[in-house]
Amino acid sequence: MSRITALETADVRFPTSLELDGSDAMNPDPDYSAAYVRIVTDAADGLTGHGFVFTIGRGNDVQVAAIEALAGHLVGRDAEELLADMGGTWRALVHDSQLRWLGPEKGVMHMAIGAVVNALWDLRAKREGRPLWQVLAAMTPEQLVDLVDFRYLTDALTREQALEILRAAQPGRAEREARLLREGYPAYTTTPGWLGYDDEKLDRLCREAVAEGFDQIKLKVGGDLADDVRRLRIARDAVGPDVRIAVDANQRWDVAEAISWIGELAGFDLAWVEEPTSPDDVLGHAAIARGIAPIPVATGEHMANRVLAKQFLAADAVAVLQIDATRVAGVNENLAMLLLAARFGVRVCPHAGGVGLCEAVQHLAMLDYVAVSGRIDGRMIEFVDHLHEHFVTPVRVAGGRYRTPTEPGAGTEMHAASLAGHTVSRDA
Amino acid sequence: MSRITALETADVRFPTSLELDGSDAMNPDPDYSAAYVRIVTDAADGLTGHGFVFTIGRGNDVQVAAIEALAGHLVGRDAEELLADMGGTWRALVHDSQLRWLGPEKGVMHMAIGAVVNALWDLRAKREGRPLWQVLAAMTPEQLVDLVDFRYLTDALTREQALEILRAAQPGRAEREARLLREGYPAYTTTPGWLGYDDEKLDRLCREAVAEGFDQIKLKVGGDLADDVRRLRIARDAVGPDVRIAVDANQRWDVAEAISWIGELAGFDLAWVEEPTSPDDVLGHAAIARGIAPIPVATGEHMANRVLAKQFLAADAVAVLQIDATRVAGVNENLAMLLLAARFGVRVCPHAGGVGLCEAVQHLAMLDYVAVSGRIDGRMIEFVDHLHEHFVTPVRVAGGRYRTPTEPGAGTEMHAASLAGHTVSRDA
Repeated sequence: MSRITALETADVRFPTSLELDGSDAMNPDPDYSAAYVRIVTDAADGLTGHGFVFTIGRGNDVQVAAIEALAGHLVGRDAEELLADMGGTWRALVHDSQLRWLGPEKGVMHMAIGAVVNALWDLRAKREGRPLWQVLAAMTPEQLVDLVDFRYLTDALTREQALEILRAAQPGRAEREARLLREGYPAYTTTPGWLGYDDEKLDRLCREAVAEGFDQIKLKVGGDLADDVRRLRIARDAVGPDVRIAVDANQRWDVAEAISWIGELAGFDLAWVEEPTSPDDVLGHAAIARGIAPIPVATGEHMANRVLAKQFLAADAVAVLQIDATRVAGVNENLAMLLLAARFGVRVCPHAGGVGLCEAVQHLAMLDYVAVSGRIDGRMIEFVDHLHEHFVTPVRVAGGRYRTPTEPGAGTEMHAASLAGHTVSRDA
Repeated sequence: MSRITALETADVRFPTSLELDGSDAMNPDPDYSAAYVRIVTDAADGLTGHGFVFTIGRGNDVQVAAIEALAGHLVGRDAEELLADMGGTWRALVHDSQLRWLGPEKGVMHMAIGAVVNALWDLRAKREGRPLWQVLAAMTPEQLVDLVDFRYLTDALTREQALEILRAAQPGRAEREARLLREGYPAYTTTPGWLGYDDEKLDRLCREAVAEGFDQIKLKVGGDLADDVRRLRIARDAVGPDVRIAVDANQRWDVAEAISWIGELAGFDLAWVEEPTSPDDVLGHAAIARGIAPIPVATGEHMANRVLAKQFLAADAVAVLQIDATRVAGVNENLAMLLLAARFGVRVCPHAGGVGLCEAVQHLAMLDYVAVSGRIDGRMIEFVDHLHEHFVTPVRVAGGRYRTPTEPGAGTEMHAASLAGHTVSRDA
């Protein structure tokens, strides 16, 4: 037996706004940040579990405070017991009635639970000596559904229906795992498309993306229509007709505006339109989806929880579900969202970038391929080439694909030197 | 000119769980709390603006940290300028792109903005020497719509449509204001119905409620069906056939369970069913509304923002909209919700209770009657007789009605002695 002895936090910030990396129509000057947590035990193995919430600067201290509010649930507890029943551990955290009032199940408090849940999964995977995707993909269908809280989902997905999905994917698991280890998982890149980059840089980065083997890029739109048309023309000329171009409005529009604006861009053969409006607006997305068909609507990075995911899927409001590793309450809730997507036959293309999102979310996409949907067609993980050097097991992307990670853990551990060099003090 | 010199906060907690006041099917042991803020200026009048977020205990410190993260937007700023353009002030707070990432527009960070916005309104009303409802109800339709951010609303409510609603209510304003000052505003009481009370206490409190003049009470349900039936029978026997009984499940059920459970209780002539399931589940509430018709569905106290309100109304998922003074981003966003409800012809019956929610939300209901919907039929404000003694201008409820407040301010100021006696230290 080992006990959790500490839940250590850090307010980690990178001054990305200086270069306009990450700039879009809603977020002109993000400072990529992480509200970071490290779970320490008294076990002789010395292993620690790492997790974080990605934020874009101000308020990262609030997010850290929310993580610290969870210490009472963990410190002093038996680590084996918590890790052996991650479904129960998730419920104990999410159903704390007093903390739940602060959402419920959304925003700062819910994301804090996600960081802690992900840190526990990192610890468990390290203890098992395997990457997280492989830990999860080796679990039985019964063990996997035990991780999921079906509360509020049963009108669309019951435990039995989830079991059916997972059992149907069992036969091909070994073969898909071997293929994954051999070929990796498709990626697309957002590196060329930030709104703050000038035309020359856009053109150059588009050509570099193609040269590097990507077959999809993504551009930020929604600031100014004439700019969008000009930038899309530059991008299309640079990448040629065979590379897909998605666009991302980062919640910039109202419903009617989204439909008319996208109408002006439709000639550029868009792979999808991402976050056209408020991430809470299920019915608005459904109206936009009807209004811009057959162009697919993509969303998910700000989807607050599995209840939103259920509705987006049931209402045909999303054609590409973009789960995020740190927006919801961690691995368990993302598994619920993978199951919902499989149930509705919608492809999952995870959101990534930021700080460590690529490192974390690749495990979920790979789990999906091996053990949930069993599919990889039309699916890809976002890639942005920023800040990977701060992670102990950084993603490796080559030839337009994520190479499948084999190191133990969830990918969420930052170098001690990076933490030391980028942590801001509480009183700063 | 005067400058804001400080944004002072306090983590205020009351040990209500000791008496099971406030206990329901999801919240067995709440400790009613307030993340409190006081805005101080260097004006000679010495007036201060007070606001808070109501929470139920753990995490109140996180909510305080979120309020403190807003200091940079206010301290050092010209108070007159901020107060004269409360629409612009609201936008500056809610559209801070870095802070917005933490929601967006939901949970801890959004509620923190609500506390600060409400504190500014309290200051403005005190400076004008009038109660908040009267300050708002004296504004022109143009001034009122300037307070509202129509982003994400225009598919259901445009600025022009909002103006039409407000202009239609203009002719009767003076008459309704006079009636309000004369007769007050209807109330209903939840005091008898907490789940932790035994049958004898339930029976006694029901009879007292009728004797005090209430014509609607509310019972918590959803813990155990047999208990609910027994308690409803006791309540119905105690209040007789002419007093309405609403029930509140506090998000306890999934969709199918809600419909079947309510079916078992329908014989007790329910006034409404409140929070049957997740407050994020627009489509689920719509299905429940169809399944239990003609019993009305009520919800709103956990409705994260105006985008959710828009969808609930557009989808016929709510028949009684229960706005809450501290769940959304303050007075401005609640005005948007009042306008949406008026647009869809749905009555508003505010959520209250907790700490100071009655004091705060009465102003919004009264604004609605005088200047927005212009209606009072079927409308009432929740009343729970707890913790009012801590407020400088406590609500006065008599004969089943809120007496209309006439003191300057928004009702949100606590006594200095109450703050001093119930503030927990940061390191507790």
